[in-house]
Amino acid sequence: MGMTVARKLIGEHLVSGEPVAGEEIGLRVDQTLTQDATGTLVMQELEALRLDRARTEVSVQYVDHNLLQADEKNAEDHEFLRSACRRYGLWFSKAGNGVSHPTHMQRFGVPGRTMVGSDSHTCAAGSLGMLAIGVGGLEVAMAIAGEPLYLRMPHIWGVRLTGELRPWVSAKDVVLEMLRRHGVKAGLNRIIEYHGPGLAGLSAMDRHVIANMGAELGATTTVFPADDAVEAFLRAEDRAGDFTEILPDPDARYDLTDEIDLSEVEPLIARPSSPGNVVPVREVAGTEVSQAVIGSSANPGLRDFLVAAAMVRGRQTSDAVSFDINPSSREIFADLTKLGATFDLIAAGARIHQAGCLGCIGMGQAPAAGRNSLRTFPRNFPGRSGTPEDSVWLCSPETAAAAALTGVITDPRDLGIDHPELELPARASVNTDMLVPPLEPEQAAREELVKGPNISALPDFPELPESIEAPVLLKMGDDVSTDEISPAGAKALPYRSNIPKLAEFTFTRIDSGYPARARDTGDHLVVAGENYGQGSSREHAAITPRQLGLRAVIAKSFARIHWQNLANFGILALEFADGGDYDRVEQGDTLRLDGLRDGLDGELSVRNVTRGEDYPLRHRLSPRQLEAVLAGGRIPLLARG
Amino acid sequence: MGMTVARKLIGEHLVSGEPVAGEEIGLRVDQTLTQDATGTLVMQELEALRLDRARTEVSVQYVDHNLLQADEKNAEDHEFLRSACRRYGLWFSKAGNGVSHPTHMQRFGVPGRTMVGSDSHTCAAGSLGMLAIGVGGLEVAMAIAGEPLYLRMPHIWGVRLTGELRPWVSAKDVVLEMLRRHGVKAGLNRIIEYHGPGLAGLSAMDRHVIANMGAELGATTTVFPADDAVEAFLRAEDRAGDFTEILPDPDARYDLTDEIDLSEVEPLIARPSSPGNVVPVREVAGTEVSQAVIGSSANPGLRDFLVAAAMVRGRQTSDAVSFDINPSSREIFADLTKLGATFDLIAAGARIHQAGCLGCIGMGQAPAAGRNSLRTFPRNFPGRSGTPEDSVWLCSPETAAAAALTGVITDPRDLGIDHPELELPARASVNTDMLVPPLEPEQAAREELVKGPNISALPDFPELPESIEAPVLLKMGDDVSTDEISPAGAKALPYRSNIPKLAEFTFTRIDSGYPARARDTGDHLVVAGENYGQGSSREHAAITPRQLGLRAVIAKSFARIHWQNLANFGILALEFADGGDYDRVEQGDTLRLDGLRDGLDGELSVRNVTRGEDYPLRHRLSPRQLEAVLAGGRIPLLARG
Repeated sequence: MGMTVARKLIGEHLVSGEPVAGEEIGLRVDQTLTQDATGTLVMQELEALRLDRARTEVSVQYVDHNLLQADEKNAEDHEFLRSACRRYGLWFSKAGNGVSHPTHMQRFGVPGRTMVGSDSHTCAAGSLGMLAIGVGGLEVAMAIAGEPLYLRMPHIWGVRLTGELRPWVSAKDVVLEMLRRHGVKAGLNRIIEYHGPGLAGLSAMDRHVIANMGAELGATTTVFPADDAVEAFLRAEDRAGDFTEILPDPDARYDLTDEIDLSEVEPLIARPSSPGNVVPVREVAGTEVSQAVIGSSANPGLRDFLVAAAMVRGRQTSDAVSFDINPSSREIFADLTKLGATFDLIAAGARIHQAGCLGCIGMGQAPAAGRNSLRTFPRNFPGRSGTPEDSVWLCSPETAAAAALTGVITDPRDLGIDHPELELPARASVNTDMLVPPLEPEQAAREELVKGPNISALPDFPELPESIEAPVLLKMGDDVSTDEISPAGAKALPYRSNIPKLAEFTFTRIDSGYPARARDTGDHLVVAGENYGQGSSREHAAITPRQLGLRAVIAKSFARIHWQNLANFGILALEFADGGDYDRVEQGDTLRLDGLRDGLDGELSVRNVTRGEDYPLRHRLSPRQLEAVLAGGRIPLLARG
Repeated sequence: MGMTVARKLIGEHLVSGEPVAGEEIGLRVDQTLTQDATGTLVMQELEALRLDRARTEVSVQYVDHNLLQADEKNAEDHEFLRSACRRYGLWFSKAGNGVSHPTHMQRFGVPGRTMVGSDSHTCAAGSLGMLAIGVGGLEVAMAIAGEPLYLRMPHIWGVRLTGELRPWVSAKDVVLEMLRRHGVKAGLNRIIEYHGPGLAGLSAMDRHVIANMGAELGATTTVFPADDAVEAFLRAEDRAGDFTEILPDPDARYDLTDEIDLSEVEPLIARPSSPGNVVPVREVAGTEVSQAVIGSSANPGLRDFLVAAAMVRGRQTSDAVSFDINPSSREIFADLTKLGATFDLIAAGARIHQAGCLGCIGMGQAPAAGRNSLRTFPRNFPGRSGTPEDSVWLCSPETAAAAALTGVITDPRDLGIDHPELELPARASVNTDMLVPPLEPEQAAREELVKGPNISALPDFPELPESIEAPVLLKMGDDVSTDEISPAGAKALPYRSNIPKLAEFTFTRIDSGYPARARDTGDHLVVAGENYGQGSSREHAAITPRQLGLRAVIAKSFARIHWQNLANFGILALEFADGGDYDRVEQGDTLRLDGLRDGLDGELSVRNVTRGEDYPLRHRLSPRQLEAVLAGGRIPLLARG
């Protein structure tokens, strides 16, 4: 049987297991990526693992999230990360160098390599024919230490692209079309692999847009072939030598299939407050807009900014709209400026910001409550913008720029202006000076970690007891995101290295009383619907509720990364064997789990003490994961080890 | 006797009083300037005054302080300000259009006009031959309503400039030389007027730098003549028609005099944590630096950025330094970009930020504790950066860029590079589209104020009682700034429209227990040394302690704007007749002020009940001010009116 690109990548990195859907496999990891909001914990984990030096080909620590520096904490985290990179032999990408995903693609991405990253959008590197998977920080720390990545073999979902995008329609609309068709859960336990003749019209950076938001479909990752478009990209980045062609075999077979005729795709927009709420732009045209933002890893390409700049050139944006531009990397900012686009944007009334994630992670740019903000970002979960009652929409740069001009949601085809012809430079403004290389081993061994007072030690969690009797402190619905479990944003992010303090924010987007109730209660459980823990990879969403006493989550189903993080930090992730039992549990009920050590290997059920009922449960934890959960998490297991 | 420029400006606007030093005079006000951190209160005051429409020639509301938008409050303040401008007939300068002072100079500054502004650096407009005075918000509101500005006639301090600045020395070093010679109190009750042949070498924007930081000398304002340099500036801004020559008479006499030979000035730097701690750069050369920031109203000129860009062109900044660039206005950002300087800065590793005040007002860019940050800003009061244990230095762009390159404090003359030759464009990139003009009166009358939930009503304060017996809740030293009384920064600034909430920050930089103690105590007093209330014009530094029960401040002396703000909001500003009595009072002592209504007109003393002592007091309040204080403030007085 012909091999898909995904199967080829897996085959070449397989160190254990059989690549049969649902079986646990182990993969060798070539590269790692960490960003500052998750990286401070990863570096503390390397310290806990007593690592001497990174064992990967390339490991890069980016500073792109915590750039606001409202007080000393951000800058002190940056100093800590810089010192940890010097100590452990990692690359350090300074604040201002850009968002991890496009920067990594430009400087380090290599077809055929595997990568794990403590950021859910790590999958964007699939644009270059890499197998790149967003995971929890501890997985990344283990990979840096040379351990394989373990995961259950996903299904391969082949999406065949035909035709060509029409003017005013761009890559973002393609992935929004996927979300319109399939919603935010369709990718669970799947790798999406794009193929077909339609690829010829999509540049590597266009594919980055599509691969990036595979995370919003819930996919394990997204993979594109490494073809001519990838070669052209690497050549423009002065790295032609890093190219290897990787194509699917002509007779490759996919576990599932879908097809998109690109010429049929139209401008789309995700309404508040889920990336899955996709509708045609024309359906909501005329809605008043107060903010339009271009940038983030979901639209990071030079062309994404150039098209917006060309649209507003010689025009003026609406005086009711804040038009914010977040360059995605230093290189792209330099090129934009060299090409005159930065000038055009300033002249049209844009606010130009430093290169970084910024509003995408709620670090500034929060809109007024209830006012519509159009963003080229990947996510619009409630409150992620920093505004509790926000109204955030996701769209292409074309649609965002059109709204900036008119002050209302506008299909760019209806603007009545000529579609801009863009000319991209053959060579990018390559400049690697803000990427600080690893020190030589001898010098690295002498480096000290620089820990400011905000960097707390990792908490120490005890073993899982034989039985748990505890109340359900929260009952939640479907699609709860890690943004709702442990918020990002300008208020919480500065405490990402300070677990006791960060715990005060746990679940507060859902129930502001949770932290106090949890502290009063001690051990407790929570209950949730489908796709629990979607979104960001932050392991804080496991550690902070654990810090407050959470011992088990019982849900209808889990999102992959969070499920892995729960196991890593000793929280039981259990599923209702019969989804209908979800409706029988109420917040406040007391549940009892008995005989856990045996039960987790065989039959398991939970007793609802309050109602006198029993509900059968199941779990998907591998023996390796079970061992970690029973030990109180992977770090105690290793420490004891 | 020949007239100075300052006396000419005063003479032409005098509506009451005699311009004799120390006498109260009233001046007609032509223009006003407000920024968003103080403007939300000014707009609420206009509402309290039931104003229909601004009566000034030009009133402009800038949005330049609260640009981070960590949550919905900033954006909601901007919406409120926009609606208030529409309602009251003011110009609105959108977020991203730039810092008020350079933007106002570029678009609205007119030689010969008077201006008041609710920002202490309003005096920067003296660079164009204006009489521009920073005052509390209520003074600005009264001016918008057509009332004169009342103040005590200052002494005129003539500073004669001779010679020419040498390479690597610039305007910032001139005003630092004034601070080195005279400290932060020398300008109290004085107008500084620069004159002499040395002016020929200083552009209008160079003079802006010097006039701006007259605020740090404590001066009422700074005045320059309107000469050829001013005409050249206005021509470059497409406003040649706004020029009028205003020169001092050849035989003009100054109340006090000083002289600076510009060729003798060398690169200077203010050490932490006062603008008065000035030393030669060479004296502290070699000190490690973690951050270098260029921007703010204290170095806003195109040349200030161009010189830094030229210095780093083709070079790379130190990987241990965050090199931050805060363009001061949209126009300057556009010109920098057109001239290639933005590209050079990005290439050298700079973080380019949106146009605005940013780190200068503690909105982001906070350094790590104890790490040295070199800034071209006007102020380095403790904690103003957002970092409690900060280490902020003030210097020229040349000195900041030199440190960015070397990673240590470096006299730019010792860098060993050629001094860059700058060519400034004859025409600026004038673009007024982000300045929204006032609506026509009929349309304005129909506008509604848009008040988000964070915009509280102005508090209502009762009359001053006949006697006060209350404890001294704080005893402070000399030069306490309004930053220490009511902090700015990313945490507090979002509450500038919400007095009850903002009051929680009062005096916390000095004593974190003050708000709780004040709430427990109710009516109370504070005691301070010289120059109490220096720095920013924020009237919040009067309103928030008043909200917590402060009834009187007894100090050795007061800074002008804060002293006026205390009177405006019903707090007695009293001085020790004998400065030695300051030493006899301890924090916690109970003091009694009796027979206030009569005493304030004649002999006044305070009884130290705890120690059984009496201290004679004096005050400088005019009868007009006294009336306001007795009524509980100017708004209750007007309301009763």
